[in-house]
Amino acid sequence: MKKKPIQKAETKKPTISVIDYTQHSLEELRIKHIDDCERFKKTGSKSWIHVFGARKTPTLEKMGGLFDIHPIILDDINNTDQRPKLENHGTYLYTVLKLVSYNASQQRINIEQISIILSKSFLITFQEREEDVFHSIKERIRIEDAKIRKMPMDYLFYSLVDAVVDHYFLVLEQLGEHVTKLETQVLKLPSQKTMKAIHTLKHDMILLRKSIWPLREVVSNLRREESPLISSETDLYLKDIYDHTIQAIETAETFSDMLSSLLDLYLSTMSHKMNEVMKVLTIIATIFIPLTFLTGLYGMNFQYMPELNWEFGYPLALGIMFGVAVFMIIYFKRKNWF
Amino acid sequence: MKKKPIQKAETKKPTISVIDYTQHSLEELRIKHIDDCERFKKTGSKSWIHVFGARKTPTLEKMGGLFDIHPIILDDINNTDQRPKLENHGTYLYTVLKLVSYNASQQRINIEQISIILSKSFLITFQEREEDVFHSIKERIRIEDAKIRKMPMDYLFYSLVDAVVDHYFLVLEQLGEHVTKLETQVLKLPSQKTMKAIHTLKHDMILLRKSIWPLREVVSNLRREESPLISSETDLYLKDIYDHTIQAIETAETFSDMLSSLLDLYLSTMSHKMNEVMKVLTIIATIFIPLTFLTGLYGMNFQYMPELNWEFGYPLALGIMFGVAVFMIIYFKRKNWF
Amino acid sequence: MKKKPIQKAETKKPTISVIDYTQHSLEELRIKHIDDCERFKKTGSKSWIHVFGARKTPTLEKMGGLFDIHPIILDDINNTDQRPKLENHGTYLYTVLKLVSYNASQQRINIEQISIILSKSFLITFQEREEDVFHSIKERIRIEDAKIRKMPMDYLFYSLVDAVVDHYFLVLEQLGEHVTKLETQVLKLPSQKTMKAIHTLKHDMILLRKSIWPLREVVSNLRREESPLISSETDLYLKDIYDHTIQAIETAETFSDMLSSLLDLYLSTMSHKMNEVMKVLTIIATIFIPLTFLTGLYGMNFQYMPELNWEFGYPLALGIMFGVAVFMIIYFKRKNWF
Amino acid sequence: MKKKPIQKAETKKPTISVIDYTQHSLEELRIKHIDDCERFKKTGSKSWIHVFGARKTPTLEKMGGLFDIHPIILDDINNTDQRPKLENHGTYLYTVLKLVSYNASQQRINIEQISIILSKSFLITFQEREEDVFHSIKERIRIEDAKIRKMPMDYLFYSLVDAVVDHYFLVLEQLGEHVTKLETQVLKLPSQKTMKAIHTLKHDMILLRKSIWPLREVVSNLRREESPLISSETDLYLKDIYDHTIQAIETAETFSDMLSSLLDLYLSTMSHKMNEVMKVLTIIATIFIPLTFLTGLYGMNFQYMPELNWEFGYPLALGIMFGVAVFMIIYFKRKNWF
Amino acid sequence: MKKKPIQKAETKKPTISVIDYTQHSLEELRIKHIDDCERFKKTGSKSWIHVFGARKTPTLEKMGGLFDIHPIILDDINNTDQRPKLENHGTYLYTVLKLVSYNASQQRINIEQISIILSKSFLITFQEREEDVFHSIKERIRIEDAKIRKMPMDYLFYSLVDAVVDHYFLVLEQLGEHVTKLETQVLKLPSQKTMKAIHTLKHDMILLRKSIWPLREVVSNLRREESPLISSETDLYLKDIYDHTIQAIETAETFSDMLSSLLDLYLSTMSHKMNEVMKVLTIIATIFIPLTFLTGLYGMNFQYMPELNWEFGYPLALGIMFGVAVFMIIYFKRKNWF
Repeated sequence: MKKKPIQKAETKKPTISVIDYTQHSLEELRIKHIDDCERFKKTGSKSWIHVFGARKTPTLEKMGGLFDIHPIILDDINNTDQRPKLENHGTYLYTVLKLVSYNASQQRINIEQISIILSKSFLITFQEREEDVFHSIKERIRIEDAKIRKMPMDYLFYSLVDAVVDHYFLVLEQLGEHVTKLETQVLKLPSQKTMKAIHTLKHDMILLRKSIWPLREVVSNLRREESPLISSETDLYLKDIYDHTIQAIETAETFSDMLSSLLDLYLSTMSHKMNEVMKVLTIIATIFIPLTFLTGLYGMNFQYMPELNWEFGYPLALGIMFGVAVFMIIYFKRKNWF
Repeated sequence: MKKKPIQKAETKKPTISVIDYTQHSLEELRIKHIDDCERFKKTGSKSWIHVFGARKTPTLEKMGGLFDIHPIILDDINNTDQRPKLENHGTYLYTVLKLVSYNASQQRINIEQISIILSKSFLITFQEREEDVFHSIKERIRIEDAKIRKMPMDYLFYSLVDAVVDHYFLVLEQLGEHVTKLETQVLKLPSQKTMKAIHTLKHDMILLRKSIWPLREVVSNLRREESPLISSETDLYLKDIYDHTIQAIETAETFSDMLSSLLDLYLSTMSHKMNEVMKVLTIIATIFIPLTFLTGLYGMNFQYMPELNWEFGYPLALGIMFGVAVFMIIYFKRKNWF
Repeated sequence: MKKKPIQKAETKKPTISVIDYTQHSLEELRIKHIDDCERFKKTGSKSWIHVFGARKTPTLEKMGGLFDIHPIILDDINNTDQRPKLENHGTYLYTVLKLVSYNASQQRINIEQISIILSKSFLITFQEREEDVFHSIKERIRIEDAKIRKMPMDYLFYSLVDAVVDHYFLVLEQLGEHVTKLETQVLKLPSQKTMKAIHTLKHDMILLRKSIWPLREVVSNLRREESPLISSETDLYLKDIYDHTIQAIETAETFSDMLSSLLDLYLSTMSHKMNEVMKVLTIIATIFIPLTFLTGLYGMNFQYMPELNWEFGYPLALGIMFGVAVFMIIYFKRKNWF
Repeated sequence: MKKKPIQKAETKKPTISVIDYTQHSLEELRIKHIDDCERFKKTGSKSWIHVFGARKTPTLEKMGGLFDIHPIILDDINNTDQRPKLENHGTYLYTVLKLVSYNASQQRINIEQISIILSKSFLITFQEREEDVFHSIKERIRIEDAKIRKMPMDYLFYSLVDAVVDHYFLVLEQLGEHVTKLETQVLKLPSQKTMKAIHTLKHDMILLRKSIWPLREVVSNLRREESPLISSETDLYLKDIYDHTIQAIETAETFSDMLSSLLDLYLSTMSHKMNEVMKVLTIIATIFIPLTFLTGLYGMNFQYMPELNWEFGYPLALGIMFGVAVFMIIYFKRKNWF
Repeated sequence: MKKKPIQKAETKKPTISVIDYTQHSLEELRIKHIDDCERFKKTGSKSWIHVFGARKTPTLEKMGGLFDIHPIILDDINNTDQRPKLENHGTYLYTVLKLVSYNASQQRINIEQISIILSKSFLITFQEREEDVFHSIKERIRIEDAKIRKMPMDYLFYSLVDAVVDHYFLVLEQLGEHVTKLETQVLKLPSQKTMKAIHTLKHDMILLRKSIWPLREVVSNLRREESPLISSETDLYLKDIYDHTIQAIETAETFSDMLSSLLDLYLSTMSHKMNEVMKVLTIIATIFIPLTFLTGLYGMNFQYMPELNWEFGYPLALGIMFGVAVFMIIYFKRKNWF
């Protein structure tokens, strides 16, 4: 939530890997000195520079200097609490995306910031962690006759955004399974634990929705921006991504509605259960309390209690008690209590 | 919810049936080899090619090749989790629709995807299952002087969309009957089962709404797209469909509101019942607990309890008890408890 | 809710009455043969043809033929589940309205469909029932120097729409009185019956809102459509109607909000009552249960119980009991329980 | 709510007062005969004609005739259930406003209709009651070098609207104090009376919102209407009023949100209290019920009950009871019940 | 909430400090006589005049005279209940902002009004309290080669707005920590105090939202207003601020949603707890009430009760009691009550 960049010391140097490719050539390398990047700025080939674990440090600043990135953008890259957005800076497009992933064991959504800078001949991605989330795209690039090799730079850009949107669907799918599981639980054997799980899921859904909403805007702006960096051919693919983001938003909202409905069901189930508990208590208590009174009555030690000396006093008392109990039971039956 | 196409093996070959008609001629056949379709691409007649159970397989790909369908559309046809949409590809319009049906016994809504490709001289429909949901339209085509025989290709298209919208009304009607039935139950004899039924219905309504909403957009876009494939004559019919989708949405929302109101009624009924149960318990307990105390009092075994030896001790005790009970009853009457 | 026309056999022939008037002449008659209508199509006078109880039957079709009404409109007239709408067909305007009325005894809203076709020289109204809901307008026409006699056809049209909007206010007024009555009940003596009445009223309000909303659109479109059939003079009157529909919508929403607030009040009252009931039970039980235990204690039959033989054992026990009771009462007082 | 004008007999003649002023002259008088008004229609001075208690009567009609007011407006003036609106009739602007005031003792909002007709050289105000709500503005006019004396007619108009908007703030302020007072009550000592007060306040807020909303529209239209009656200089003042209406709306909504939050707090407090009551009952009952059972056990009159004859039977029994009680208390402590 | 300026006597004279700077020169001083300000109006340098504790008094009026500020703006500056807004007065821009701060100990949000007047060569800020909230900006100006020294007047303006927006984030961060803390409390050990804290936080969130919303509008207008006072260079920075306000709004709404979800969790937890309490009572009561009845039965003093004389009457009775208890326990186990 904090807007200001966290000025952590760059304890770990960021790792930088580059894939430089044309339709027929491919070069993959790990950059050791930041200045080695420079040669990828203006080659005839397409270069994808992937920076892991970037922080506001000399490294990032040098990078900015090498590729003419505006300082305000370097700030944004470093500050991982940005909301998804798109900025057109003429010679390059700057995009902030959020990569969501779901930790099933902890039932928590992790959100990682991905910043992408798209230029005519190079594309730079910045991500927080060390893990390579775009591994499958790299695999595709390694295949010589793959479409991605033939298409211009913006097709790689599209592929990256598509991968990010796909992650939303993966998370939504897992949350969806959770919703279904909770629904079964509430219908079968609801417990306070179920309620807490509903709450956690709602919490997650709120966070997810918060990060999906601006994504729609980003993709929609991508299509509206008449940047020469986005070819008309890629636009068809962007439309597809747009449809998917809309679908993701609608799915998230459908789940939210279902969770609300589930909560209502849970509460009504609780109230129903309480009613049942109360009825059991009431039936037992209302039947026996008058009987116990009667036993108390003839347990009194008054000297002059004629009934106590009657020969059939005891059976009579038992009879009265039995009558009272039967009357009570019939009364509750009439009231549909059991 | 999953966006990616499910790459199921094409265990069953899709069935393809064709109706090729002009105002005066009619040819109906089942296609065995996919290449046999080709001749319908450019005849003077109108051809409706109906594909049942399409999957991303050689069959679908061949079809795409024969009729110049963009690969991204073939993907969409195969992926049955699309949301309703309309795409204008110049020489043809591609539409995704959702055919809803209601399984009354399981109380579940089934949603099937219908993809339609409308071109000048042919129309291709893809549906998931084997059952022919457009049977009645085929019947109409078979009648020689039917309007559908005289009108251009887009009238058939209109008829298909109309049939899909009609299905929403059928489902809404069944859900509406359910709402009314539940309302009677809640007013007469509400139970936890009623509550679960309200929940299930709400769940269904959420799903239905999710699939109706984009439909409105589709029909509205159909009218706005100035495609030469849609004649101005058909536009009047589309306006009618548009009105119906709006009506369907409003009906669904009215039902949602009624279900919410029903839920409130249910909960207040439960709370009222609980109140009644509590009152019965409280009245019985508060009358008899003091009396039982009194009986206990004179049931004590102290040697020196003067009352026990009084001649009228017993009737006096009975009198006091009677008095306490009467006082309690008056007190509760005053409080309007019964 | 069903969209398809109900193909009821025309057991009863529809009644058709005509008022044909100019500023100075007036002719009123009942049509026996449908063809007798034809002469009103193109007279110099203004003709109002009022059809009661129209069904899709030869009568309606003949009518359509006589006055050049599009078949799709005849369908709409016959299908009484249309939502209010306006269609401009060049030589005539077609309007669907809903006439609401309130059955106070059954507490149910009745909704009747009114279809109006406005042309240069004639106006046709179709209504479901036999009762003449526009009686007062007819009365006004019968007065020779009434404004309605002098004004063109569209003034009659305005008067009809105005009458329909007025009915909404009549119904709203009755519902409003109901809301006030229920409010008094909830504040004074709420019961489960009150709750059911709130529910029924909410139900009615939902239905009413559903039929008012599109009305606003209709009136707004009437003003925007630049039809030569609507004179600029009438526009001022339409603006007035528009203001009234807005007011009707806002009033309906205000009532809905009040009902929601009333429901909250009801539920909190129930919960407060339950609290009171529980407190009474708890106070009585917590005071007497320990006392009863004490009586039980000295009611035991052990041989060696020294207290039983003490001379002041009994008064001492009574004293202890008295002390416990007083302590309990003070405790509850402190907790503000009574 | 009723739209139709209430045709009350004009039992009391409306009072009419006129202030006719230029920068240097001032004339104040009470009109006896309506025709005396005529001379103010076209003087070089600015005339403010203030009509108290206007009803649809000869007076109002004559007035309409004198100042060329459209009959439909006379209807609106007379019908005090109009919603706030602005109508531009070329030579004059017609505005309906609602003057709210708060009756603190009855805790009810009073709403009075103010109709204003602004023309080049005169301004007519119509109000329902006899009290002069614009007294302070009149005071200002009486001061010779006041700004209002120097400015054109529309500045007076602005001053009137400003006074009306100010009344909303006065009412909101009083309601706001009420909200704060109720908040303290709910946090300190909530009772059913508090709940009823929350309900009444909500009711008032709903009514207030209903009358503020259209006001915003009116002020916004005033600025958009390019009427020669509104000078560009006055526009700055109107912008100020516009800001104030927005602020009033936001304040009203903030209060509504606070009331909702308060209601939640009240309900949770009730539920918490009930829980406390239940716990007290349960603790007392669960401790003493088993003990009472034990006393009952040794109160039985069987001949052969060896324990009764043990020398230490009684202390043993007491010991067991003590043990059970301690066990129960520990159990409840563990469950954090007290 | 009150719109009218509070006419407090200017007991304390406002403090005025001036920073006058160019890239290479810097002059800082405290103004004693208001007229000393005049010389900063038209210097070649940039002047920031900072007024603390301004009230509608001679001081403020003189200031207005010196710098040509419209009287209506002086009113607004003095009235600290303005909502954030932007007004373009040609030669200067007038902005009202709200500086929020959070008092952690009292858990209350403080809102202070900041008015800024931006002109070509000077910038005046008015704030309520004496504390210097823009201390850090002044520090930056004091550094000779700081960016702020080189940039034109509007960069200072941007810096001030940025500082105000930053305060929202600081407050949101603190509220966010509170939300997390409350969430832990509700999940672990919810109490009525937790509920009151949720309420207070909601209250704060409502106030915060009320002041953030118009801020977005202000920043958005700043960018749209084509004022020569805002250079295109500064626009990029304003876009950044705009993103931050959007983010602040979304964060506030996310917190609101979380609080609502938390409230639901709290209520369900309460209801669950009540259920548990009721179950304990019911289990204990339903097991012992019948047993106590049995002991009462054989505690009666009838002369003819054959069981009392049976040799094994007592063990038999004990056996029956044991049986009843076991049966009850099994019954509750079956019902999953413990």
